[in-house]
This record gives sequence, C-alpha cells and structure tokens, in this order.
Amino acid sequence: QDAQARAQLAASLPDFPWDSLAGARQRASAHPGGLVDVSVGTPVDPTPAVVREALIASADAPGYPTTWGTVALRTAIIDYLHSRWSAVPLDHANVLPVIGTKELVALLGFQLGLGAGDAVVIPTTAYPTYDVGARLCGAQAIPTDDVDAVAELKPALIWINSPANPHGRILSVSETRAWVDAARSVGAVLASDECYGEFGWDAEPVSVLDPRVNGGSLDGLLAVHSLSKRSNMAGYRAGFIAGDAELVTSLLEVRKHSGEMLPTPIQAAMAAALNDGAHVAQQRQRYLARRDQLRPALEAAGYRVEHSEGSLYLWCTRDEDCRASVDHLAGLGILVAPGDFYGPDATRFVRVALTADDERIAAAAHRLTNAQP
Amino acid sequence: QDAQARAQLAASLPDFPWDSLAGARQRASAHPGGLVDVSVGTPVDPTPAVVREALIASADAPGYPTTWGTVALRTAIIDYLHSRWSAVPLDHANVLPVIGTKELVALLGFQLGLGAGDAVVIPTTAYPTYDVGARLCGAQAIPTDDVDAVAELKPALIWINSPANPHGRILSVSETRAWVDAARSVGAVLASDECYGEFGWDAEPVSVLDPRVNGGSLDGLLAVHSLSKRSNMAGYRAGFIAGDAELVTSLLEVRKHSGEMLPTPIQAAMAAALNDGAHVAQQRQRYLARRDQLRPALEAAGYRVEHSEGSLYLWCTRDEDCRASVDHLAGLGILVAPGDFYGPDATRFVRVALTADDERIAAAAHRLTNAQP
Repeated sequence: QDAQARAQLAASLPDFPWDSLAGARQRASAHPGGLVDVSVGTPVDPTPAVVREALIASADAPGYPTTWGTVALRTAIIDYLHSRWSAVPLDHANVLPVIGTKELVALLGFQLGLGAGDAVVIPTTAYPTYDVGARLCGAQAIPTDDVDAVAELKPALIWINSPANPHGRILSVSETRAWVDAARSVGAVLASDECYGEFGWDAEPVSVLDPRVNGGSLDGLLAVHSLSKRSNMAGYRAGFIAGDAELVTSLLEVRKHSGEMLPTPIQAAMAAALNDGAHVAQQRQRYLARRDQLRPALEAAGYRVEHSEGSLYLWCTRDEDCRASVDHLAGLGILVAPGDFYGPDATRFVRVALTADDERIAAAAHRLTNAQP
Repeated sequence: QDAQARAQLAASLPDFPWDSLAGARQRASAHPGGLVDVSVGTPVDPTPAVVREALIASADAPGYPTTWGTVALRTAIIDYLHSRWSAVPLDHANVLPVIGTKELVALLGFQLGLGAGDAVVIPTTAYPTYDVGARLCGAQAIPTDDVDAVAELKPALIWINSPANPHGRILSVSETRAWVDAARSVGAVLASDECYGEFGWDAEPVSVLDPRVNGGSLDGLLAVHSLSKRSNMAGYRAGFIAGDAELVTSLLEVRKHSGEMLPTPIQAAMAAALNDGAHVAQQRQRYLARRDQLRPALEAAGYRVEHSEGSLYLWCTRDEDCRASVDHLAGLGILVAPGDFYGPDATRFVRVALTADDERIAAAAHRLTNAQP
C-alpha cells in the first residue's frame, strides 16, 4: 500500500470540468455591464423566513440527532408527498431524510451494496453525479434513454430525472410508467430524481409515487426529492427519499451505521419548509418571470430552445459546437454551461440557468435582444 | 438482482445492540427518584451562545456550500490546531471539515479506496464504528492494541483513539509516536481519533499533529476531531480532519464528487466554536465536577474504576459479567452501557457517561453512596 494505491478511488473519478470555463468567465466578466453568471443552478433568492425561523428556533442542539429524522420531519415529508404528489399511502417506513440529494445520488449504489458486475442505467444527457455514483461502487454506468434496452441490460439500478437537468425535459405519465414496468421486469431499483419537481412550466411533472405510474405499489421504487431549489435551501443540505419500505429500511440501516444524520436545526428547518407551500408558489413565479424574459431574448439572439418544459434551465443551441456558443454569450457578458459537461450527445447545446437575480436576468435579456444574431 | 441481494451491505453490518438494554432501562426507570441515563455519551448542556449566534447569522443560505468549507472555517481549524494542539505548520491543503466524525470514521476506508484484501487495525475495546468502517469497504478489521503486530499485519489503515471511548485511556507521547512509526514502516494511514481531546483529566492528551509525535512531518497521518463533545454540538454534525496533504486532497476529491458538504450555517457555527476557548474551559469544569462526584460514589458502591484518565466515561467493574453490573445499577435507577458493546475483552466492565445534568449526576452519586456494596 503506497499513497498512490490509496488514492485509487479519487483517480477513478472524472475531473471537475468547471475549470475549462475560466477563459469564458474572464471574457464575460470584462463586459462593461458586468457578468451575468447563469452557468450554475445555485439559488440566489433568500431562504424563506419560515425556514430560517425554524432553524433559529432549533439552534440549541447539544445531543445527537437520529438518522431517520424527527417524527415531525417524517410527518412533514409524508404530508407533502400525499398532498403535492398524489403519493400512494405512505408511512414512516417509506421515508428517509438525506444530507442533500447529491450525497444520496453519489452513494446510493454503494449503500444498496452494488459493485463490480452491476449495471446502472443513467440518462445519456445528465447530471454527472449519476455516473459518479456508479463509479464510486465499482458498478458500470450505462447511459441510455431507451426504456426497451432495460430488458437486455438487466441493470441493478436505473436513474431517471424529470424535469431533467440539464435539458428540462418532463417525462409523461406513460413514459414514467414504462420505466417503472421495465425496472420491475428485471428486478432493478428505479430511482427517480424529482428534485426539480416544483418547476414544471409547459407540462405537469409526475412522481413515481403516483398510483397512475406505479399501479398502487412502491415495489422497487425510490423517489428522490431536494429542498435546495424548491425552498432556496441549497446551503442547508436537505433532501429525502421515499418509496419501497424494504429498500428504505435497508438504506436506513447502512446510513445509521455510517453516521449520515442531518443536523437537528436542519431537520427542523426542513419540516417547516415542507409544511409551507406559499413560498414555493412565490419562487415559481420568480423563475417563471425570468424564463419569460430570457427565452425570447435567447431566441432573438439566434438560439433555439429545446425541451425546457421544466427545471431551472433553458437548453439552447445555435447548431454549433457548444464552446462556440459559450464564447458568443461570454462576449455578451453571459456565462453559461457547455453541453459537453452533461454527456457526448449534448455538445451542440448550452445550459442557461434561471438562477440569477431579476436585475441580472433583465441585463442579460437586454443584451441578447440587442445582439447581432 | 433481487431485493435480498441488494440488501447485502446492510446485512453485513452488526445489529445495533442498544435494544438489549430495554429491560434494564425499564427497571431503572421504575426507580422512585427517576432514571439517571448515563448509558450514552450525548451532551446535555446547552450549545454555547457564541455557536448559536453564528448559526443564526448564517440562516439565509440559498446557495451551495463548498465541500472544503469556507476560508473562515479552514482558518479557524488551522488556528485551533496550532494553538491548542501544537500542530506542525498547517495550511489549507491539510484540513477538511466533515459532517460529524462518525460519518468520517465509517467512510474513511471506502473513501481511501480500501477493499477486500486490505487490513484495518482497530483497538480491541472500541467505538464500534471503526469495525463498521472496515466492513463497509469490504476490508478486514483486525482488533489489536499491540503496536508490534503492525509489521506483520501490514494494514492499509490503523485507527487509534486517545482519550479512548469507552475506557478513557490516554496514550502517552511515546506510545503515540510508536504507532506513527509503525504505520509509516508499512505505509499505512494512521487515523487518530482525537474527539475527546479536550477531556484529559489525569494525563495530557497529545495529537498526532504534534512534532513530538510525528517528527515534524504529517506523512501518512490524519487527526480526526469533533465538536460534538467539545462544544455541545452533537446536533450540528461538525467535525474535521487534518494531516497529510496528499491524503486530505484525495479525500476532498472523493467527497466533492460525493456531495459531502457541511451546511452553510453549520460551517459558520463551527468556525465560531473553534475560535472560542472559554466555553470549552467551562464545559471541562462541568464534566470534572460530575466526575469528582461519580467516581467516589461508584467506588463506594463496590466498583473499581480502570483507565478513565480522560474522555467522558468512567470504566468500571465489580469483577463480574457486565450484564450483572448493568442490572445492579439499574436497580439504583442508573442506566449504563455494558462493556460487551465495545468488544469481547470488555465483558466485565460497564461504561458510565458523565453526560447527564448536574441534578441527575448528584442523584446517582447519592444512590450509589448509600447502596449496599
């Protein structure tokens, strides 16, 4: 064992690609009107008062929290899933809080006991952490959007994501049901990343917890929800999973032993956030207004917007290599993410996030509208 | 792949033994003076105001935190380690916050890339999570307290813990140096769990970061620190590691990909806690006063206290099976942890925590002093 051998897990992981945007960032920052950074999906609007107040009220927290979360938190998760997502009847054995969903996405394969010889189906154009999660447990990630491929691939785990990052596509009820059926036909776990669920614009997202999709059974299903975007809580690291009680119980067991507890003040804040819908409606309106400004402006500047029915992104192309589009927009002081961050099928698209404040979005729209197409 | 196979990781882990205390808990709770629960080491004194205020001031946290932590947090860690632990010169590449140290202990082997064929040396009588961490990555835990066994065992990772849970032993400078030398002689990582470091009573704990121990080099070393006990922050999930920059960088890489970020308000609270020594001195006094009450009372009741030079525990025996001692103390309304939770060499001891409030500790001392030995 030398240090080199010990670092083998780190070496198996992809490089973080964001450094490759340094030149574009520099160029965009030189714009006389200042940088508009819409390259990342990090919320910029305030954490709602109801959430902050719950955190503050739980600041005295000397003792250990439980991994499963407080009864109040689990109850809030269940009530939210019933009322907002028409979930089949859930009880506490069906739900489990996680320390933000990135952690869960990265560690799910490992915590399910997957390893070499297991296949993990992931979307072709996707959030990179699905692939990372497969690598971390030594499984093989297989990018495909073809539900009919499942029968032959016989994966142990399948990830779907709707509304999707980066391209904002929303799966219909029948498409989602087809993934459920395919997963069940091979005994795979179907993990449905629904973290942009509150942000459907041109179509209505559906959860795998919905009986129209799952036929009234949670067998093999896990819905993955985050409060980062919904409640401007990315800094809180607050998410949860819900689904098949046997899977949730097995994950709870591993996570108890692994010490993956949410801090007590975060648990309280999370329960308050889930019990309040008003701030979500307000946040939806903010993003919708930004989208209504940015989308026509991008089109005026010669971009075609594809998919983007939901999520916090506009998925745009000028039918050129994405790096050319990144450079073009950087010239307008606008920094976007190149499609090549999200898979080899996406190299002619850029991802434009709605997560800048109103003033910056207006500035970007103004520049785009007045640009030469 | 069926659900059974998928649950294999959970099945490889030990049962949580606390359920076996249900009878003793019931008996102790029936005491007319009420239960004194000193079975677990969960802090009961308030989280210090300086910590709560920092959390509260950071409640607005819509955006993503960084895995490496804020510059303010890293600076606070470094300053604390220099001033309190006489650490060799450290810079930011030597430190990394973790979401409580249980998570780090459980996942360190995995995150270092250890697996089948790797040996992990752990103390014979120990916190169970060292063993769990080996199991989680498929490595083999080898309990031994014999530093001379390292040469033959050639472990990839060695855990030491001083002051130790459960028995409170403190390793001397020369003992700690012997572990450093042994680890280096076989290229093992030496992880030193120093989470009870602020609680040395009859001897002075030393860190592996101290040049008297490491000869001025951090090669192969990781010190593991928690704020749970030091700052009554178990509910915050706040810890950090410090040591070999190459190891820390490799862990940072894996943890960035795994989304193992500390919430923003927790990072702020942690920095404030590390920058303040007054509350630690106050907390030390509280535990010392409880120890000064409990120790002679246990001796009056026929118990012999071994080790216990540090940590938050008294390690006691009546030279009988630990479950008999648990029952005896439950008869006095006092719930303690049986030594069999901590390894097969400890079955004639019980662990008595100092983590009950002053009133409860006084009640326990009174009952013990007046009990029939």
